[in-house]
Amino acid sequence: MLEKTVRMNALFDFYQPLLTLKQQKYMELYFLDDFSLGEISETFDVSRQAVYDNIRRTEAMLEEYEEKLGLYQKYKERTKRYRQLRKYAEESSPSPGLMKTIDALEKLEEEGTK
Amino acid sequence: MLEKTVRMNALFDFYQPLLTLKQQKYMELYFLDDFSLGEISETFDVSRQAVYDNIRRTEAMLEEYEEKLGLYQKYKERTKRYRQLRKYAEESSPSPGLMKTIDALEKLEEEGTK
Repeated sequence: MLEKTVRMNALFDFYQPLLTLKQQKYMELYFLDDFSLGEISETFDVSRQAVYDNIRRTEAMLEEYEEKLGLYQKYKERTKRYRQLRKYAEESSPSPGLMKTIDALEKLEEEGTK
Repeated sequence: MLEKTVRMNALFDFYQPLLTLKQQKYMELYFLDDFSLGEISETFDVSRQAVYDNIRRTEAMLEEYEEKLGLYQKYKERTKRYRQLRKYAEESSPSPGLMKTIDALEKLEEEGTK
């Protein structure tokens, strides 16, 4: 379950803007804030089953987006390469510009998942 | 018009998997293969107006996806940084590993837009 939560949080980071506001809210409460289905259903005054169905559908949508666009997968590959870059750069005598550019690339990825 | 064609080609590269097969086919013929609306309407035996409407709607969808996910914008920022990296790396005495990692990052971007 922890592994799934981590993955759903990551996919949610990348594809959140493609979801409806209700989907975003449920996902946020369930996966980020660790609300139970019962707590979400009380908060929104809907049935527990409705919340459950909505979240399951949203999970499937996120996996479908990832299958089509692969943003999370590509993000992981890039950040792995950035760590390599930093290692190789530090092993030589890197120019300040080189290190700053690596910093900028890493910063770009952080912004990209907000 | 040329500027718009370049942009639509780029957005199409990034968001193509989110379009229907018909949308993909029309966009490909119109923007990549430079077919006229008349030629597309003959090919598919539909009205010129139907093709026109479909393409206009698809253009709007692509712009909406870009507004939400910004994949083309982020791609441009990353590739600009990769060029900087290469310049800074070449100015020092870069390790082969450093240059290979930059190559791998650039290759990743090419794959990402196919």
